[in-house]
Formats: sequence, structure tokens, C-alpha cells
Amino acid sequence: MRNIVANRSGKRGQAPGTPVFVGEKYLETPLVTTIAYDESRATEGQTADRPKFIPSHARSGVTWINIDGLHDADLIASLAKSYGLHPLVLEDILNTTQRPRCEDYGDFLYLTFKMLRWDSTQRRIDTEQVSLILGDGYVLSFQEKPGDVFTSLRERIAKGKGRIRKMGADYLAYCLIDAIVDEYFAILEQVGEVIEVIESDLAVKPDSQLLQRIHRLKREGLLLRRSAWPIRDMLNTLEQVGGTLLTDEVRLYLRDVYGHSVQVIDTIETLRDLLAGMLDTYLSSVNNRMNEVMKVLTFIATIFIPLSFIAGLYGMNFRHMPELEWRWGYAAVLALMAMVASGMLFYFKKKKWF
Amino acid sequence: MRNIVANRSGKRGQAPGTPVFVGEKYLETPLVTTIAYDESRATEGQTADRPKFIPSHARSGVTWINIDGLHDADLIASLAKSYGLHPLVLEDILNTTQRPRCEDYGDFLYLTFKMLRWDSTQRRIDTEQVSLILGDGYVLSFQEKPGDVFTSLRERIAKGKGRIRKMGADYLAYCLIDAIVDEYFAILEQVGEVIEVIESDLAVKPDSQLLQRIHRLKREGLLLRRSAWPIRDMLNTLEQVGGTLLTDEVRLYLRDVYGHSVQVIDTIETLRDLLAGMLDTYLSSVNNRMNEVMKVLTFIATIFIPLSFIAGLYGMNFRHMPELEWRWGYAAVLALMAMVASGMLFYFKKKKWF
Amino acid sequence: MRNIVANRSGKRGQAPGTPVFVGEKYLETPLVTTIAYDESRATEGQTADRPKFIPSHARSGVTWINIDGLHDADLIASLAKSYGLHPLVLEDILNTTQRPRCEDYGDFLYLTFKMLRWDSTQRRIDTEQVSLILGDGYVLSFQEKPGDVFTSLRERIAKGKGRIRKMGADYLAYCLIDAIVDEYFAILEQVGEVIEVIESDLAVKPDSQLLQRIHRLKREGLLLRRSAWPIRDMLNTLEQVGGTLLTDEVRLYLRDVYGHSVQVIDTIETLRDLLAGMLDTYLSSVNNRMNEVMKVLTFIATIFIPLSFIAGLYGMNFRHMPELEWRWGYAAVLALMAMVASGMLFYFKKKKWF
Amino acid sequence: MRNIVANRSGKRGQAPGTPVFVGEKYLETPLVTTIAYDESRATEGQTADRPKFIPSHARSGVTWINIDGLHDADLIASLAKSYGLHPLVLEDILNTTQRPRCEDYGDFLYLTFKMLRWDSTQRRIDTEQVSLILGDGYVLSFQEKPGDVFTSLRERIAKGKGRIRKMGADYLAYCLIDAIVDEYFAILEQVGEVIEVIESDLAVKPDSQLLQRIHRLKREGLLLRRSAWPIRDMLNTLEQVGGTLLTDEVRLYLRDVYGHSVQVIDTIETLRDLLAGMLDTYLSSVNNRMNEVMKVLTFIATIFIPLSFIAGLYGMNFRHMPELEWRWGYAAVLALMAMVASGMLFYFKKKKWF
Amino acid sequence: MRNIVANRSGKRGQAPGTPVFVGEKYLETPLVTTIAYDESRATEGQTADRPKFIPSHARSGVTWINIDGLHDADLIASLAKSYGLHPLVLEDILNTTQRPRCEDYGDFLYLTFKMLRWDSTQRRIDTEQVSLILGDGYVLSFQEKPGDVFTSLRERIAKGKGRIRKMGADYLAYCLIDAIVDEYFAILEQVGEVIEVIESDLAVKPDSQLLQRIHRLKREGLLLRRSAWPIRDMLNTLEQVGGTLLTDEVRLYLRDVYGHSVQVIDTIETLRDLLAGMLDTYLSSVNNRMNEVMKVLTFIATIFIPLSFIAGLYGMNFRHMPELEWRWGYAAVLALMAMVASGMLFYFKKKKWF
Repeated sequence: MRNIVANRSGKRGQAPGTPVFVGEKYLETPLVTTIAYDESRATEGQTADRPKFIPSHARSGVTWINIDGLHDADLIASLAKSYGLHPLVLEDILNTTQRPRCEDYGDFLYLTFKMLRWDSTQRRIDTEQVSLILGDGYVLSFQEKPGDVFTSLRERIAKGKGRIRKMGADYLAYCLIDAIVDEYFAILEQVGEVIEVIESDLAVKPDSQLLQRIHRLKREGLLLRRSAWPIRDMLNTLEQVGGTLLTDEVRLYLRDVYGHSVQVIDTIETLRDLLAGMLDTYLSSVNNRMNEVMKVLTFIATIFIPLSFIAGLYGMNFRHMPELEWRWGYAAVLALMAMVASGMLFYFKKKKWF
Repeated sequence: MRNIVANRSGKRGQAPGTPVFVGEKYLETPLVTTIAYDESRATEGQTADRPKFIPSHARSGVTWINIDGLHDADLIASLAKSYGLHPLVLEDILNTTQRPRCEDYGDFLYLTFKMLRWDSTQRRIDTEQVSLILGDGYVLSFQEKPGDVFTSLRERIAKGKGRIRKMGADYLAYCLIDAIVDEYFAILEQVGEVIEVIESDLAVKPDSQLLQRIHRLKREGLLLRRSAWPIRDMLNTLEQVGGTLLTDEVRLYLRDVYGHSVQVIDTIETLRDLLAGMLDTYLSSVNNRMNEVMKVLTFIATIFIPLSFIAGLYGMNFRHMPELEWRWGYAAVLALMAMVASGMLFYFKKKKWF
Repeated sequence: MRNIVANRSGKRGQAPGTPVFVGEKYLETPLVTTIAYDESRATEGQTADRPKFIPSHARSGVTWINIDGLHDADLIASLAKSYGLHPLVLEDILNTTQRPRCEDYGDFLYLTFKMLRWDSTQRRIDTEQVSLILGDGYVLSFQEKPGDVFTSLRERIAKGKGRIRKMGADYLAYCLIDAIVDEYFAILEQVGEVIEVIESDLAVKPDSQLLQRIHRLKREGLLLRRSAWPIRDMLNTLEQVGGTLLTDEVRLYLRDVYGHSVQVIDTIETLRDLLAGMLDTYLSSVNNRMNEVMKVLTFIATIFIPLSFIAGLYGMNFRHMPELEWRWGYAAVLALMAMVASGMLFYFKKKKWF
Repeated sequence: MRNIVANRSGKRGQAPGTPVFVGEKYLETPLVTTIAYDESRATEGQTADRPKFIPSHARSGVTWINIDGLHDADLIASLAKSYGLHPLVLEDILNTTQRPRCEDYGDFLYLTFKMLRWDSTQRRIDTEQVSLILGDGYVLSFQEKPGDVFTSLRERIAKGKGRIRKMGADYLAYCLIDAIVDEYFAILEQVGEVIEVIESDLAVKPDSQLLQRIHRLKREGLLLRRSAWPIRDMLNTLEQVGGTLLTDEVRLYLRDVYGHSVQVIDTIETLRDLLAGMLDTYLSSVNNRMNEVMKVLTFIATIFIPLSFIAGLYGMNFRHMPELEWRWGYAAVLALMAMVASGMLFYFKKKKWF
Repeated sequence: MRNIVANRSGKRGQAPGTPVFVGEKYLETPLVTTIAYDESRATEGQTADRPKFIPSHARSGVTWINIDGLHDADLIASLAKSYGLHPLVLEDILNTTQRPRCEDYGDFLYLTFKMLRWDSTQRRIDTEQVSLILGDGYVLSFQEKPGDVFTSLRERIAKGKGRIRKMGADYLAYCLIDAIVDEYFAILEQVGEVIEVIESDLAVKPDSQLLQRIHRLKREGLLLRRSAWPIRDMLNTLEQVGGTLLTDEVRLYLRDVYGHSVQVIDTIETLRDLLAGMLDTYLSSVNNRMNEVMKVLTFIATIFIPLSFIAGLYGMNFRHMPELEWRWGYAAVLALMAMVASGMLFYFKKKKWF
């Protein structure tokens, strides 16, 4: 279940920098994948055992270590030690309730943000925290569960497609961010399609179930927005604090992905505005139907209530009611009723109610 | 069909900088128009064949190459190569779902924004992405479909009207931007007229169809706003990063068009506020009518229900009902009814309900 | 008629800087008024003929040329030529749909903003565009129609009242701005009075006509706001770009009028908030009345419907209805009815509905 | 009466800097109070006559001249002349419709803001404009009416309590500002109490009179906010432009009062949010009651209308109605009615309406 | 009781810097706890007597003096004197109605903010003001009541856990802030859980009691927000003005807690948006039910009112009503009624009302 506010109770009263896992355990043993490459070759190794981490400066080329599953604090602490990470970073990696942001620790940059995936069975968005460490010649990435949006990136590294093998660790980090932000567009497309379906349903038959779908989507949009907005700030900070860890070439690419993040936010806001507009449309259409229903009730009631009264009047059993004896009494009453009804109709017509 | 969120699925998993066309194909073969001019002469050539592009520095004067139709990635790649464009720019030109922005690539500036046209048959706004490359002595422009707002500009170049033949490529770029922003005003005039029609309809007969028109216009306004807002930022960035590509004279003109873009945004916001006000007016007028209808129902019902009860009372068939035998029973009951009705009317009068 | 979005269609496809009149023609022939003064004397000339404009540097003292009526593009072009104005300025002066702003052209400053006047016959605000050119020793002002808020200023010049004859052209420009901003206060007073009248009407008898007045005032407030907000920015820019055209003394005065413009905006926002509050008050008071009406209906209906049913029951014509034969049947039914009615009343009382 | 927009019509067409009193006249003759003090002694003089003002530099210590009543423009002009005040300052002091702000005139600082007092008889806020001139060794203060929040300050000066006699004119100015801002807290406490009373009334019996109190309070909050917001900016400007007129020590105190002004704004916004929340609560509680009333009506009507129809059916006088002759006809009809009623009740139960 | 606006009336008319206690008295005698530690040892002393305060520079290591209970102004004044605190600081410590902020007094920093605790018996948030003085080698903390969120911190100092004994007073101050901000997350979790419970209740049975819970939670959120927002600014100021009192290491930690404060604000805003969404959901669900109820009423009434009229017609007692004598009159009327009812049903069906 996705709680609105993540449970962080394990952290209360702990000394700052204490590595405590905060989140849900999705798989038994963490999975460590190490990819090392330079222009000429690329190797990939995967293990669920506790590996010995070799610091990057002992290697040439680019090293990318990815860990799926964060509950094993010791494993991640040993990785952190090999790469000389600050205790605060370790703490933040293990805490899966972080707000997307970028921190500069001098030797390396720490980035954290949300990776989204469309859960097509439940028709909703699934979020997962991804942390990145970008150092000199290495990228460390930390995910909560296996399965990610980096498959095609791994393939590009393995097959040497594109420029990736020719570029440094900063380009790799950019590619990871780019893949995640691209996935946001995919999610937005899904949401956009759902909205379009609702929009056309709204024109055909607005019912209360539709309303629930709109409300659910609004809630989803709220969470989506909360993940997307800080990414822009994160990318902005990244460019500012990047220093020598980022080459000018990669900065150009980062500016591009920054533009995409702005577009994501823009689209989310537009979708939210559309949803708000649809709610308005729904409410006014419900209101319109209600008004029509009420008008019919009023029409029927105001026509027949006076007529019924007249009928009731001559249904009284008084001994002395001269009209009852009249030859044309019945006809006269029928005529009276017709006049009253026409009068009413005329009045309604004049008032343009119907 | 205009999707709310453009489909970009072709881009997922692609290496950054890969030229992939994202958008709809509007015409079979792209149309390449090359206009070259200096103060003394102007030539124009048009071809649907794949031309050989001659880089600008090999020419004198100003070269303007315009391409209608972006689905032929190879054609555009060959143009990009001739002019030494960065792969990211190529990717962005082919992706028709960009948010308006301006990027500085040193040798050239990349601008992208939305060109609007009023689709008078469907009474709605049609958007099309236009990308501009402003380099030293050349302007490249990329459009999704044939047909644009540059006709009079081409004529001015051909006939040497105005200052255009005496100015450089930066002035040409300004003229293109100016023509597009001017078209926004034309669109806003159309929208303004539609709003005025609705406004006067609203005063005469507010019905649910009118409501739909308002809602549709609000949605249109949302998309309009989304195209217009970033143009201001784009022009701002353009002036800042323009460097030596922009002369002081052209900066003056750009400041002018910047002022126009602010005015466009201003007008859009005012139109949106007017629409919101009209929705309020509609809702309160519907509410007022409903209240009137309900009042009539209440009036009729509260007058006649008690009278009907009295009539019903004396319609009972009890053997022993002394009033029925009275000589003036009927008259007394009629009098009682008149009194009840007048009492009611008096009460309503006092309460100022009618 | 005041269009929401001004018609600028005459401008489409024109080369930038082409002088095209955009607006309405209010008088046959433009009226040119030239006032020249220094500390010792002041002359005023008025002509509807096409005068020869003598550039300011050929004169001593301060020259103020005012033109009422902008449709004669040639006249204004000849003035622009005499004073060396940039084509863009000429274009902007002729276009009466400008957003208030201030542009620095080095030799002179260009200012444009809206002059408001209260149209007391139609009880609404009338706007007119005023453009000012402040150069070294001269001020040019352009208005759409004759009649303005500068009468007392002209008198002060003629009679040498106040400091104006001792000061330069910048002080004259300040005086013009000050007079226009002061008029905003007068308008706001009018609007404030109208709001107060509505407010007291609202307490006495809220009807749908009142609602219309509120809505109309809201719309008026929207247009008022649109004219007033940019004036603050204009004055801010003016102070920044003023350079040597403004003396320190006049800057002090401009800061004062800047403070006034902030106050105007502030007051507009407060009036808008008050209007919004009045709308809320209106809606809740209408709602309250409706609820009262509905309660009476419910009261009457729920009391009498069951009673009528009982009466109807004993109005049935079954042969075998033992109660009808009872000696005290009628009395018993009346007692039953009284009980039902009291029970209902008691229930309503307990529920505190009445 | 407190007009929404103050009447400034006396100012129209006047030359800038002309001293014109704009406001209401609260007392016959202005009251001039002069307090002079240094560390060793303090003198206080009060006169309603036109005194001769002795400029501060002719005195030692601190001079504080306070004027209650601003309609005597000549008196204030003579004071302004003695202290060398700019005509614009004189004009601003006499205009009681100023927005709170701070202006730097080199030799002295001009501050204007609103002093609030709780009018306990009318249960509303009373505003009065206070202008301060802080110069080297003197403070001039201008109030609209007698009676202020400075009583305890005067006493502190007279009795030499606290640090005031040891400090300069800047500290005196700070004390005046502090006293006024402190009074805002007192007002907010009053408003807070009123809100709490309304809040508890809302829980007990929400009626339309309560609604009026909320609306009135909202309006009051609007005016309160308009007085309080600019004070923050004023204090900010004061610190920036203070120059040598403010000592470091006093700047520390001003930062403190700045903090208070932020807190005042904060509290006002919270109160406004609370009021908005209360309006929502009121509206939904009224809505709830209405819904309950409507449900009872529907319940009664839907149960009895069919029953009445059946009764009416057998009240018809057709000669040939076989059921009427049946032995158990009456009983059968009663049973039918019971069945219909139970069916209805069961349906309602199932739908969970009651 | 928690007043909306705290009562500060004790402060009116006091000289600035006068130490006056503003708040509620929670315990008889203030409790003074002194903790002194360096890397090798840690001592803790607690007394309710008036202790003699030894200034920090006379000690080595870090001194932390905590005072619970602020009503004894003399005690705190004597502490303030020992540590050379400015009178304004003393005044602010005693005033428990401060807005969170940070002030730089050169030798020391003054911080004040709200510590929250979840009052589980009343299911609401309890706030308490905490003031911190961070000087060279010492931290002074001031709380309104005993009981705080620092228990685990004290333990860490006593047992030498973590890095705290190796670090300076700035790290201690950071730990205090961190503990308080961490508690905000705990509170938000509680609120989040309450919201989730309401959310699921909303789906099952929306009633007016639920509405009250939502409104109460909104009010709680308002107060929560008011405490949380300024903490971000406070931390920002702290980092800027910290000077030499903060080491680079601790600045890193403060940046981390700053990130947390941003996340707290973010979460509060999301919760507020969720609550607003729930209100909307509630209102539309209530509206839907109401509409259904009204439809049933309309259905029943519009079917049976015409039928009842027909029955009433033939219940009239006119002597000459030919239909009554007809052999198949009764059957014909029944048929007519069936036709009317079916017609109505068919009409409703066609209009898709049911």
C-alpha cells in the first residue's frame, strides 16, 4: 500500500548519520550489478552475494554499480566505505522517503529522485526512489526494487551503440536521469489517455462513477506533481554545483533534460487544470439534469394540484351543494379545469420556463 | 486529433541525440524552400527533391532555408550536417512536442515555439511547432505542415519592401518571430469575438449549450496559454544569450516583440478571467431561474395542499358528520378555504417571498 | 463599443515599423496644440492644419506638443521625423492597443499608458491611450480624442502657478503622469461609491438585478486592473532608464507618483476582494431565502399529506367499512388527524427545524 | 463613516506639492505637543495656539513634536518650513489616504502608516494615519485625532524609565513604531476572540445572522490586511535607507519590530484562512440541514402519494366497481396499502437513505 | 485551551526589552538542567533551585543549559546576564508567541521555533515554543513545559554514542533542531494516518460527522503549516549568518536538516491538497445522494399526481356525470390511468432520467 506520509518511525531518536533503512523490503537479497566499460570494451557482472567493492580509482574507464534492494544496510555501508561516502549520504540512500534533491559533497554529487512506472493492472502510478552518486569515473545507483527503465541503456553500453562508451561517468549519470525523465512522459501519456477517455464519457453520460474516476485521477496528479516539481530544482542545482565532475558537453545535455523536466511540470499542471475543468463540467451537467428534473416535477405539480383541489371540492358530501344538481355542472367544472390548466401553461410559456 | 499529451513513445529507450521524428505526418514529401538575398537581389527556389545544402559561409548575403514537413529525418540530418548542428538540436527539431524555448549553442541559436492558426471551419485553434536556427548569415526554419504566416514576409523580401533586404539574418529571424506573435493577436481577436457573442447570449438566454461553449473555450484558453507563456521566457533568453549574433538595432526590435508577447499573455489572462466571470454569471442566472421555479411550486403547493385537505375531509363518507347536514355547511367551508388561502398569501407577502 | 480584444487586423503582414493606425477615429481632423514656455513667458498655439514642426533644439525653454486624434499617420510621421523618432516608436504611437510600458531610445524616452475617465452617463470607465515622448527640452503627447485631464496643468503653465515654469521638460512629463494617475483615484472613488451603494442594497433586498450589477462591476474591475498594474512597472523602468533626461529633483517626484500607482493597485485589489465578498454574501443570502421557502413547503406538505391520506381513506366507497357506521367515527378520525399533526410538529420542534 | 476608497477630490488638478488637507476634521484646533529631553531632564509643553517652531539643531538632546489634527495646513506648513521639509512631504502628511511607506529625503526620513484602535462600542477596527519625520535629533509625528497608543511612552520619557532618555531620536522613532505595531497584536487578539466566539456558535446553532458576522469579519480582515502588509515593506526600506540617521543599536531593535510585523501579517493570514474555513463549515452545515429537511419531505411524500392514489381510486363514484361490493374489499385495500408502504420503506432502507 | 491569537496583553505599553513573561504557566518551579561534556567525559545536573550560572568561557568542552518553564523572569534574566545576552533576546525568550526565526547577535545566535507533539488523548497537535542560544562553547535551550524530544540525544551524550562528544556546541544545536524537525515527520505520519482513515470512511459512508472531522483536520493543518513554514527560513538565515559559530562539517548537517524542513512543508501542502480534495469528494457524494433522493420524489410525484387527479375527478358528486353510469366506465378509467403512467415512464426513459 502507498501511504500518504511514509512511515519513518525507525529514524526517531537516532543519531544523525546512523544508517537505518526506512521503507519496504521488496526482495529477499539485494542484487548488485557492476558494469565497467571504456571505449574498447564493456563487462557486466551480477551477484546477490556480498561482493568486495573495488574503488573506482583503482580501475580505468567508467564503473557503474547498481544495487536493487536497500534493506541490507551493511552491504550499502561497505560500498559507501569503499567509495568514501559521507555518513549523511548513506543515511539518505537508505531512507526511501526523500524529497528529490541534489547535494554536493566535493568529491562526489549525491542525487535522489523518484522513478515512476505505470502499474497497468491497477491503472495507477507506482513510484520508487532512485539515488545516484556521481564521482570521478564512477556512478553508483540505488533502487528499491528490481526492474527499471535502464534496460536499453545497458544494451547501448554492452553493444557500444551511441556515444556512451566514448564518454565519461557524467554522461552515464545524464543517461540515467534522461531515462527516468523520459519515463515521466510515458506516464503522462497514459494519464492523458485516461483523461481523454473520461472527457468523452463525460460528454455522453456523466454519472457518479465518473466523478470518482476524476477524483482518483486528481489525487494521482497530486502525487505525480510532488515527484516531478523538485526534479527541476535538482537539475538546476546539479548544473550549478557540478564543478569539474561535469564536462561542458554533458552540461549541454543536462540543459536539454532540464528543459524536459520543465515540460513535464508544464504538462502536469495542464492536466490538473483540465481535470479541474472536467470537474466543473461534471458538476454543471449534473446540476442541469437536476434542474430539468425539478422543472418537470414543478410543471406536473403546479398543473395538477389546483385541478385536484377542484375535483376534491366537488367530491365533498355536503347535502346542500347547488352546483352538484346543475344540469351542466360537470361540464362546467371540466371547462373550469381546462381553463386553469391553460392559464398555467400560458404563464409558464410567458416566463419561458419550458 | 489533438491529444492532450503528445505521443512520444518512439523516443523511449533511444540514445540521447538520436534523430527520431515524433509527431504526425501531414504531407508526403517535405518541401524545401531556399531564399537568398542581399541588398541588391533576392532569389527563391523550391524543391521537394533532396537538395544539396550549401553552407552559408560559402555564400554572401542572407540565406533562409525553410522546410515544411519533418518526418524525413535523413533530409533534416543532411541539412544539420551541412550547417554543423549539434545532434541534440536535430533531435529537438524532429520532436514536435517541445515546449517553447531558446538554446544557445555558441555558433548558432536554437529557438522553438508554437505557431497558431485559427481553424475557422472547426472554430478552434490549430497549433504547429516551428523551430528556428539563427546562425551567422543564415536562418533555418522547420515547420510541420505547409502554409504559414510568412507570406507577406516573403513578398517583402522578393520586392525589397521595408528594411529587410538591408538587414542581416538576425533581422530575418526577428521578422519570423514577429509574424508568429502577431498571429497570436489575430487568434485572440477571434477568441475575443467568440467571448463577446457568448456574453450577449448569456444576457438573453442562458442554456446548457452555452455552458458547453464556455467550457470548451476555457479548455482552448488553457492550450493557448500553454503556448504563449513560454514565448516570453524564450525572447528573454534570446536577448541574453544572443551575443554577437544579434545587432543592437535588432535587439531594439526584439524588445518590441517581447513587449507584444507580454501583451499576449496579459490578454489571455484577461480572457480567462472573463470566462471565469461568465461561468459565475451563468451559474447564478441558472440558480436564479431555478429558485423562481421552486418558489412557484412552493406557492402553489402550500396554498392548495391545505385546501385539498379540507375538501378531502368533507369528502369522507362517515354516516355521522353533522357539518354535512348544515344548511350553510358548503358556504362555510368555502369561506374557510378562502380564509386559509388569504392567510397564506398574507404570510407570503409579509415574508416578502413574492 | 469597447471590444475585449482590440482589433489589430490592419497590422497583419505589415513590415515592422510600418506606421499603421490601429484604433477608432474619434474626430475629423487631428488637433495639434503647441505650448512653449520658460521661466519668463509661455505661449500656446492650436491648429487643426498640418503645421511645420520645429525641432526643440532650435528653441529655448520647454516645448510641449500635444496631438488629439491619431488616425492621420502622415501628420504624426512628419512630427516623428522632425524629432528624429525611431520607426518602432511611430508604429507604437499609432497602435492604440498597447500595454502600458516605458522604452528607452537613448535620445528620448517613450512612455505609453491608459488615461481613464468616468463616463457618468453610462456609469462605466472609459479608457484612452496616451503616449508620451520625453526628450531633451521637449515633451510630445498623443491622445486618441480631445478632452483630457491636463486642463489645470495648462492653466498652471499659462499663469506660471507652482514650480512648473522653473523646471524642465522632465518635470512636465512628471506632471502629465501625475495628472493621469490622480484621475485613477477619482475613478476608484466612483467605483468605491458604487460598491457602497450595492453593499447597502445587498443588506436590504438582494435580487438578481443586484447580482448583475456586481458582475458588471467585476468585469469593469478586470479592465481597470489591466490598465493600472503595468503603470507601476512603467514608472519603475522610467526611473531606471531615465539617465540624464531626469534630474534628481524629478526622480523624487517620480518616486512619489510611483507610490501612488502602488496605492492604486492596492485599492483595486481591495475593491476586487470586496466584490468577491459581496458575491459570496449575495449567494448565501439567496441560498438562505431559498432554504426558508423550501422549509415552508416541506412543513406544509409533510403535515397535510398524511392528513389528506386519512381523509381520502374514509372517502372510499366500499360497502363494508365498519368505521363509517360508528357513532363517533368522524370524531375519532379528527382526533387521529390532530394527533398525527401534533406528532409531526413535535418531531420538527425536536429536530429544531423551525 | 469609513469609506472604502477615501475621497481625495480636493487634490485633483492641484500642482504637485501643493499642501491640501485630504481627510476628515476630527477636532477644532490642532494640538501641538512638544517634548524635549536628554539624559538629565525632560520637558513637555502643549498648546493649541500657533506656536513658533524652533528647529532642532538649535537645541540639544531629542525633540519630539506631535501634532493632533491635520486640517490646519498653514500650521503644518510653518512647522515644515522650520525643519526644512520638502513640499512633497508636506503634501503627503496632509493627505490621510496614504499607503504605508518610507521615503528617504537625505536629511530626514519620512514614514507613514496606519495606527489601529479597537472601537469597542461598534466592535470594529478604527484606523488613523500617523506620519513620522525622523531627522537628526528630532522626531515629528502627525496624527488625525487626539488619543493614541503613546501614553506609556510619554510616561517613560517623563520618568526616565527604561533606556529611552539615554538614546537618540532614532530610538524614539523606533519606540513609536513599536507601540503602534504592538497595538496590532492587541487588535488581533480582539479579532481572534470574536472568531472563537463565532466558532463555538457555529458548532451549536448555525444561522444566517452568524453568516453575516463572518462576512463582516472577513471585510474587516481585508482592511486590516491592507494596513498591515505595507508596514513590513516600510520597515525593510527604513533599514536600507536609514544611513547615519540610525545607529547599529537601533537597527537591532528595528529588526525585532520587523519580526513582529511579519508575525502580524502571518496571524492576519491565518485568521483569514480560519474565517474561510468557517464559511465552508457554515455552508456545509446549512446544506446538511437542508438535505435532511428534503429527505423528510421526500420520505413523507413518496410513502403517502401512492397510498392517497389508491384511496382516491376507491373514492370514485362509478356505478360498476366490483371491488366496492366485496365483503373483504376494504380489508384488502388496507393490506395493499400496508404492502406498498412497507415496500417503499424497504427500498429506502436498502438504498441507505434513512 | 489553544487560543488562535495568543494573549500578549502583558506587553502593551512596556519599554522594548523589558522581560515580561507572555504565555501559560505549566509547572510550579522552573527546572534547570546543565549538561557539560567533552570527548572524555559528560556530567549532568538538574535543579529546581535558583542555580549560579557559570559562563561557558570559564569551562572547557560544551555546556548545555536547558530550562523548562519560563514564567520565572528573574531566573532567566540571571542566566541571560551570565552569558551576556541582549535585553531583546531575553524579552523574546519569555514571549512564547514568537514566530520561528533566527537572529544574529554577533557573539551568539538566537533561534526560536515550535516543537510539536501529538496529543494522542485529544487526537490533536500540541505546540510548545523552544528558544535556542548558540554561543561559543555553549547552547542554552528554553522550553515552556517539561518533557521533550531530546531524551535520546541526552542518552547519546551520556553514553558517548555517535559523534556528539567529539563535536562542538554547533553540532549540539544541530542535533536539537534535527530532533525537533524529525518530530514533525512523526506528527505528519499521525495526520497522514488520520487522513487515510477518513479517506476510506468517505468511500463507505459519507456523513456530516465525517465532514466535521475533515474541517477540524483542515484547521489543524493551518496551525501546523504556520509552525513549519518559517522553520525553512530560519534554517536558511542560520546558515547565512552563522559565521564562525558554525563549522563546515555542521553546515553540511544543517543543509541536510534544511532539506528535511522543505520536505515537511511539501508534505503539509500535499496533505492540505488531499484534504481539499476530500472535501470536494464529500460534497459531490452528498450532492449525488441528494439528487437521487430528489429523483425518486419527482418520479413518484409526477406518476401519481395526474393519476390522483383522474381518481379525484370521478370522485366528484355531480348528479349528471354520464361516465359514472357506463358499464365499462371503471375499466376505461383504469386503462386511462395505466396509459398515463406508461406514458410518463416512457418519457422518463427517453430522457434517460432513471
